[in-house]
Amino acid sequence: MSDPTAPNGAQALVQTLVDAGVDVCFTNPGTSEMHFVAALDDVTAMRGVLALFEGAVTGAADGYARMADRPAATLLHLGPGLGNGLANLHNARRAHTPIVNIVGDHATYHKQYDAPLESDIDAIAGAVSGWFRRSMTPDAVAADTADAVAAARTPPGQVATLVLPADVCWLPAPAGPAPAVAPPAGRPPASDQVAAAAKALQSGEPCTVLIGGRSMRADGIRTAARIGHATGAKVMAETFPSRHERGAGLPDIPRLAYLAEFAQMQLDGTRHLILVDTVEPVSFFAYPDKASVLTPDGCQVSTLAAGPDDPLQALEALANEVGAVDAAPTAPTGRPDRPTGPLDTETLAAAIGATLPDGAIVVDEANTSGLSIPGATAGGPHHDWLCLTGGAIGIGLPLALGAAVACPDRRVLALEADGSAMYTLQALWSMAREQLDVTTVIANNSSYAVLNMELNRVGADAGGPRSRSMLDLRDPDLDFVALAGGMGVDGVRVESAEDLTTQLERCNGEPGPHLIEAVVPALGL
Amino acid sequence: MSDPTAPNGAQALVQTLVDAGVDVCFTNPGTSEMHFVAALDDVTAMRGVLALFEGAVTGAADGYARMADRPAATLLHLGPGLGNGLANLHNARRAHTPIVNIVGDHATYHKQYDAPLESDIDAIAGAVSGWFRRSMTPDAVAADTADAVAAARTPPGQVATLVLPADVCWLPAPAGPAPAVAPPAGRPPASDQVAAAAKALQSGEPCTVLIGGRSMRADGIRTAARIGHATGAKVMAETFPSRHERGAGLPDIPRLAYLAEFAQMQLDGTRHLILVDTVEPVSFFAYPDKASVLTPDGCQVSTLAAGPDDPLQALEALANEVGAVDAAPTAPTGRPDRPTGPLDTETLAAAIGATLPDGAIVVDEANTSGLSIPGATAGGPHHDWLCLTGGAIGIGLPLALGAAVACPDRRVLALEADGSAMYTLQALWSMAREQLDVTTVIANNSSYAVLNMELNRVGADAGGPRSRSMLDLRDPDLDFVALAGGMGVDGVRVESAEDLTTQLERCNGEPGPHLIEAVVPALGL
Repeated sequence: MSDPTAPNGAQALVQTLVDAGVDVCFTNPGTSEMHFVAALDDVTAMRGVLALFEGAVTGAADGYARMADRPAATLLHLGPGLGNGLANLHNARRAHTPIVNIVGDHATYHKQYDAPLESDIDAIAGAVSGWFRRSMTPDAVAADTADAVAAARTPPGQVATLVLPADVCWLPAPAGPAPAVAPPAGRPPASDQVAAAAKALQSGEPCTVLIGGRSMRADGIRTAARIGHATGAKVMAETFPSRHERGAGLPDIPRLAYLAEFAQMQLDGTRHLILVDTVEPVSFFAYPDKASVLTPDGCQVSTLAAGPDDPLQALEALANEVGAVDAAPTAPTGRPDRPTGPLDTETLAAAIGATLPDGAIVVDEANTSGLSIPGATAGGPHHDWLCLTGGAIGIGLPLALGAAVACPDRRVLALEADGSAMYTLQALWSMAREQLDVTTVIANNSSYAVLNMELNRVGADAGGPRSRSMLDLRDPDLDFVALAGGMGVDGVRVESAEDLTTQLERCNGEPGPHLIEAVVPALGL
Repeated sequence: MSDPTAPNGAQALVQTLVDAGVDVCFTNPGTSEMHFVAALDDVTAMRGVLALFEGAVTGAADGYARMADRPAATLLHLGPGLGNGLANLHNARRAHTPIVNIVGDHATYHKQYDAPLESDIDAIAGAVSGWFRRSMTPDAVAADTADAVAAARTPPGQVATLVLPADVCWLPAPAGPAPAVAPPAGRPPASDQVAAAAKALQSGEPCTVLIGGRSMRADGIRTAARIGHATGAKVMAETFPSRHERGAGLPDIPRLAYLAEFAQMQLDGTRHLILVDTVEPVSFFAYPDKASVLTPDGCQVSTLAAGPDDPLQALEALANEVGAVDAAPTAPTGRPDRPTGPLDTETLAAAIGATLPDGAIVVDEANTSGLSIPGATAGGPHHDWLCLTGGAIGIGLPLALGAAVACPDRRVLALEADGSAMYTLQALWSMAREQLDVTTVIANNSSYAVLNMELNRVGADAGGPRSRSMLDLRDPDLDFVALAGGMGVDGVRVESAEDLTTQLERCNGEPGPHLIEAVVPALGL
C-alpha cells in the first residue's frame, strides 16, 4: 500500500463505470462488496439503488437499460447473490439487454480455503452471460471494467459479468484516466440478405415480416409498416418484445400469440417469413401431439437482420429496395370509454386504456388477466410496452423499478399478476425509498391461472383437487394492500370497474409509488 | 401410447419416491411440471406443499430433511426456477442435507428450438449438486428416481438433482414394482485415524476436538464430551452446524465464533486439532491484514471422520481407545429470569430463554441480534438448533417451514433478522396454508447491521452517508406485522422485554403460525 492517496480498485472501477456512462448501480451487497459500497462516497456521480433481494436488482437493471438505452451496473454478493438474481438475468439475456453484472467474490488468495460462501460463480454466471471475466489484479480492474461495459453494449446487447475479488477492490490501483469504452456499432445490412427479403416480398406469394428486438421502436415500426403497406406483406411482432413503442400516431403491429395454436393461425398461409432482429417462432412449451415449430410447412424463412446487425439500417435498405415510400396507416386515435360494472378481463383493460397517461411506460406481467390490455391501449397516447422476454415470472415489479429510475419524468404502469408479483415483491420497497412514480396494478385472481390452463393443455386433464390446490392462491388469500403497506407503498383494493378507473386516475396523478389491488375472476380458458 | 392404463412417467416417478420414503414435495411448479402435479391426485401418499417462491421451496426441503433425517423432494420450473432456489441449495450443500431436487425441463425433442425458457440447467445445477442426472426416457425414470434418492442419502448427504423433461413425464412408463433404494451406510472408522487422534489426545499437549455435522446430535455430543472429560481436551463445535441438539441434560459445547479474531482466541494455544465431520476452520471472509486460516501456527490437524465416514462410530472408537468412560458434565438446568425493560440483544435473548418450549426447533437467522440467544438457552429444555450453514441469508423462514412439516408435534421458533427475512418472506404464506406451529420472531433493527460492522472490519472505514445508506433499512421502515398479515399470518409488534415475553408465551401456546416483530437497536459492534 505504497501511495495512500491512490484510489483503490473499487474506486477505480466505479470511476471507470461513471466515465463510460454507467452511473446507476442496483445492489444488494454483502461483506465482500464493502469496498465498492464505500466507493459510493468517493465517486458521487454513481447512484446506488438498494434492493432487498437480488431478483429486484437484476430485473431493475434490465428495466433501466431498456428505457435508458445504456446499461446500469448491478452489484451482487458472490454465487448465492448471483443465484438470487439469475432468473431476471435469464430474462435480460433473452431481451438482449446490456447489463454490467458485477459479482463480488472472496479475495483471490482466500478462494482456496473453500469458505462457506465459496461456490462455482463461473458456472452459474455462464448460464446468463454473453461475456464473462474475473478481474485478478487492481492494475487490471479499470481496463476490465471498460471491457465489460463495451461488451454489454455490443449489439444487440448482452449481460457482461465481471467477477470482482475483494482484494482487487481494497488494494491500491494505479491512478490515471479511465480507459475508453468503444462498443462496436451495429453491422450494416448485407446486400444478399436485403435482396433475398426483397425477392420474397416481390414473389407475389403471401409474406410475413416478423419484427422484434431493436426494430420495435418508432423508426423500425414505421419502416416495417411502410414495407408491408407497399408490398402487401403482413407485418407482425414477436410475442414478447423487450420494448415496444406504441400508441396513436404509430402503426399498430399485432404481436404473435403466446398460445401456439393461435400463433399458428396467425402464420397460416405464409409462404415467406422474413425475420428482423428476432428468431423463428417456436412454441413456448412442448405439448403432447402439438407442434414445436410454428412456421407453416413449406414456408421459406429468411433473416434480414440478427445479432450484431443493425435492424433499422436493414429495414431502411429493404424499404428502398422494394420502393416502399408511403407511410403506413397508424392506429386510430381513441381510448375505450370509462368502464362500469364488475371487474373482469375486459373492464380491467378498458380502465387501463381509459386512463393511460401520455408517455407512460407499461410493464406487462399481467399474464392471463392482461390479455385484452394491448387492444385497449393501441390508440391511446404514446407509450412504451415492456414484456417478460424469457418466461421467468417475477420480473414485472423490478422492471418497473428500473424503468422509473431511468425515466423520472414518465409514469410507469406496472401490470402484475398475483402469482408473479409474489416472486419479487421486495421491489416495492425500493420504489418507496426512491419515491418513484410507479402505479402498480395487481390483478388478483387468487390463482396461478395460466397453470390451470396449462394443466389442461398438456393433457394432464385428470387434474383433481390435490393437483388443482397446487395452482390455487387462496387459503390464505393474499392481501396486497397490506403487503404494499408493509414496504411503505400506499395501496387500495378495488372490486369494480368504476373504482379501478377512479383509482388509476388518482394514482397516476400523484407522485411516488402506488398500488391498486384489482380483484378479478380467473380467466376461464 | 399403447396401454392407456399404464402409469405415465410422472406417476412412476412419484410412486418411486413414495416407495423410497420420500413423501413430501415442496414445489413451485410451472407448465413443464404439470404432469408431476397431476400425479399428486394418483399417488396420494405424496404430500405436495406449495410455496410462492423457489427459495422457500429449497430452504424448506433443507429444513425438512435436517429434522426428518430423510429427504424431501423439490419440484422446480426449469433453469429460472432452479436459479431462484439456488441460494438455499447452496446452504443445503454446505449442510450436507439430502435433497431430491427435481427440475422440470422442456420435452427432450423441444430443447433444440431454444424456446424462451431454455437455459443451461446442467451448469446451474452443477454448482450445488453432488449428484446430477437427466432422465431421458419414461422407461428409465423409475430407476433414475431411485438412484437420485440413494445418491441424496449417501453419507454425509447431498443434493441430488434429477432433471425431468416434460415428455418423460407424459409418456407411458412400464408398470412394475418400484426399484429398491439402497444408499451406502456410513464408513466404519479407520484404525489409523483413530490411533492418530488418540495419540494426539494422549500427547500431553493442548488438544481441541472440533465436532460438526452428524456428530452434533445427542449421542455424538455426549461421546465427544466424554473424550474431552477424560483427556482434558477442549471440545468445540463448528461455527454453523446443520443441526445441534442442545439443552439441559446435554453437555454444552461452545461453537467456534463467526468473527475470525474471536475464533482465533478460542483456538489459541491448541497444538492438536482433531476434526470430526467438519473441516479445518477458516475465516468466513478475507479481510485486509487478517488471517484466512484460523488454526494456530504449528498446530497439527488430524481428521477422525469426514465425508462418507460414520462420525458416531469414529467417536465411540476413539472414546474406547483413550478409555473415556465417565459421562461429561451437562449444562446446568436453568432459564433466564423473565426480562424487563427495553429490548436489546440481552433482553431479547432472555425472553427467548425464559419461554423456550420443551422440544422446540430453533431456526437461527437472527444474525447480530441473536448473539446472546445460545447462552440464554443452553440450560433450557431439550431442543434442536438449526444454523445458516452456507452464509446465504434468506434461509430462516423456509427452514422453519420445512422443519414444521417434518415435526408437526414440535413448536418451531424462527429467529429472524429483518434484512434476512425479506429475501424469502413468502415462506410465511406456506406456513399459514399448512397451519404449521411456527413462532417467528423478527429482530427488526432497521439495518443490515452485520454489514455496518463488516464495512469497518474490511477497512472501508471511510463509510460516509452514501455508503451507509446502502446498509440502512429505514426510509421506508419495514412493517412486518403488515407483511405477515398480507400472507395470512397473525403478527404483533413489541417494543419491551415484558411484551416480548408475554407474546412469546401466547404464540408458542397457540396452534398455527405467529409472527412477533421485536424492535431492537442495532448492535454496536
